[in-house]
Amino acid sequence: MTADATRRRLAIGLDIGGTKVLGVAVDQESGRLLAEHKVPTVPREDRVVETLGAVADRLVDEVTTADGRAPVVSAAGLGAPGLVDRSGTLRYGANLPGVVDAPLGRRLAERLGVAVAVDNDATCAAWGEHELGAARGHNHSITITLGTGIGAGITARGRVLRGANGFAGEPGHMLVDPAGPPCPCGRRGCWERYGSGSGLGRLGREAVAAGRGARILQLAGGDVEQVVGEHVSAAAAEGDADALAVLDRFGWWVAAGSANLVDLLDTEIVVLGGGLVDIGELLLDPVRRHFAAQLYGVGRRPEVPIVAAQLGSRAGAIGAALLGLERREGP
Amino acid sequence: MTADATRRRLAIGLDIGGTKVLGVAVDQESGRLLAEHKVPTVPREDRVVETLGAVADRLVDEVTTADGRAPVVSAAGLGAPGLVDRSGTLRYGANLPGVVDAPLGRRLAERLGVAVAVDNDATCAAWGEHELGAARGHNHSITITLGTGIGAGITARGRVLRGANGFAGEPGHMLVDPAGPPCPCGRRGCWERYGSGSGLGRLGREAVAAGRGARILQLAGGDVEQVVGEHVSAAAAEGDADALAVLDRFGWWVAAGSANLVDLLDTEIVVLGGGLVDIGELLLDPVRRHFAAQLYGVGRRPEVPIVAAQLGSRAGAIGAALLGLERREGP
Repeated sequence: MTADATRRRLAIGLDIGGTKVLGVAVDQESGRLLAEHKVPTVPREDRVVETLGAVADRLVDEVTTADGRAPVVSAAGLGAPGLVDRSGTLRYGANLPGVVDAPLGRRLAERLGVAVAVDNDATCAAWGEHELGAARGHNHSITITLGTGIGAGITARGRVLRGANGFAGEPGHMLVDPAGPPCPCGRRGCWERYGSGSGLGRLGREAVAAGRGARILQLAGGDVEQVVGEHVSAAAAEGDADALAVLDRFGWWVAAGSANLVDLLDTEIVVLGGGLVDIGELLLDPVRRHFAAQLYGVGRRPEVPIVAAQLGSRAGAIGAALLGLERREGP
Repeated sequence: MTADATRRRLAIGLDIGGTKVLGVAVDQESGRLLAEHKVPTVPREDRVVETLGAVADRLVDEVTTADGRAPVVSAAGLGAPGLVDRSGTLRYGANLPGVVDAPLGRRLAERLGVAVAVDNDATCAAWGEHELGAARGHNHSITITLGTGIGAGITARGRVLRGANGFAGEPGHMLVDPAGPPCPCGRRGCWERYGSGSGLGRLGREAVAAGRGARILQLAGGDVEQVVGEHVSAAAAEGDADALAVLDRFGWWVAAGSANLVDLLDTEIVVLGGGLVDIGELLLDPVRRHFAAQLYGVGRRPEVPIVAAQLGSRAGAIGAALLGLERREGP
């Protein structure tokens, strides 16, 4: 046995968001989270890899301090927001306008000295939930992340479904209403105009403008233009009937899109993640009710539970670390 | 070597439609189509298995006559319209109202004396196109069958994607327009209200009612209620501008739903099947044009060709036979 064989083996997981980079160190053997570290995102390609490298160094330092000796980094994974191709290149991410066609996988591998698995951030979050969170034990699952937009990650037969190019799981721009509001993507009536945090804010502003949202407006400081999803959630949590009605309509949209996805994928479970889900049953309850009315073949198929994600904002980084380990273990 | 080892080995494929049952006999070694036979469907559970068995007998007879000796039936597959679970039970099919929760796989296996792979008919068609038709060579594909409704079959990593229960690939009831017409499924604005043959008929009737479809109306014998998709296709084939406008709008809807599916699945190709596709470029051209404008990330991803199916109305039966062989060869 060499000295190395007795050193702790780490998987590093990194998740680039529009505003922050989160890194985690996961023990390879136990899967336990050993350290985490967060820094602001600098959305410039020449800075991204250095930022990621610095976060990884910091995680290794923390583990070294805790253990009294340096670990071996045996695997690494990265989640990035946007279209990540199978070579680990971020082709395009709406929230990282300065980072286009960036070979993040290759450059980060050079920096860290270990191969790096790169996937879409929602794919990483889905894998985290599949392995250690709410989708555990389900071979066929979808984890839908409701944030500024909508991301998704799919597992089929117990593995990540990446599609031909690595771009699978982009339901945010699925058409759900040809008469709907314009989307920055150039289309109209995309699902994320309704079912995301931005969508909730828009539904809230519409309610206020129609005179059905006095408490929502008050929480937004009296300016309808300032209403965002959080004001709706906060008013709903107080029991405000107008806000609950907005949340019910929002739940209808989340359910409609989720039913579209389950019609196509026949998953055993739908996991909802993202900050919005922190309000719990106030959101999950209407989503479940409307989903049951919209799924094709209800009554002829097993029930499909709709549950909240369990790993919170760490899902992407943890999933990235675990995908790094998967990659090490071969296809 | 036993005598059996020198006998021809057949895979029998059977496809139950709402109006007819089609059977094919495929040579196991060469994949060549040796015989086919078609009979009307009797949509009663107690008759379906006997009808299927009689078709299989007839196919064996035809091959026996041609070869001068009896073949061995080494595999069999069945495609059925509706939700087929992984045990081979047809849970529910809208076009077979008399056949509910029918263990077709088990009963047909008893009748034929060989294990029977049972899948949704559109899944079988997709597998046929993947193995011997338009999707050949593409590991990630979707074959969309535009008929009275819309069916689909998906391949991912070169295998059929069945989902948790065998129900994957049901995009017909995907919501695409909350203000759309009611659907027999109980929802509103399902994709198949627009993108199927029935949808084309409806768009044709709307055009006629709005005074934009004189030739379509003429072909339907002057009664707007009698307008169906075929009248629109026929008028378009003559170059009628009103009919071409309806077909363009129809192509928009087919494209919108197809883009939704590719956003989610990231397939390399979209195969369009069903009788509607017989008009060829008149339909494919608008679908391709609108698809390119609707797919997420166009310009950042390889082009996704939209092509016509190649196996025609035999795709389901051929795919069923090939799935029977797959099953024989293990999971």
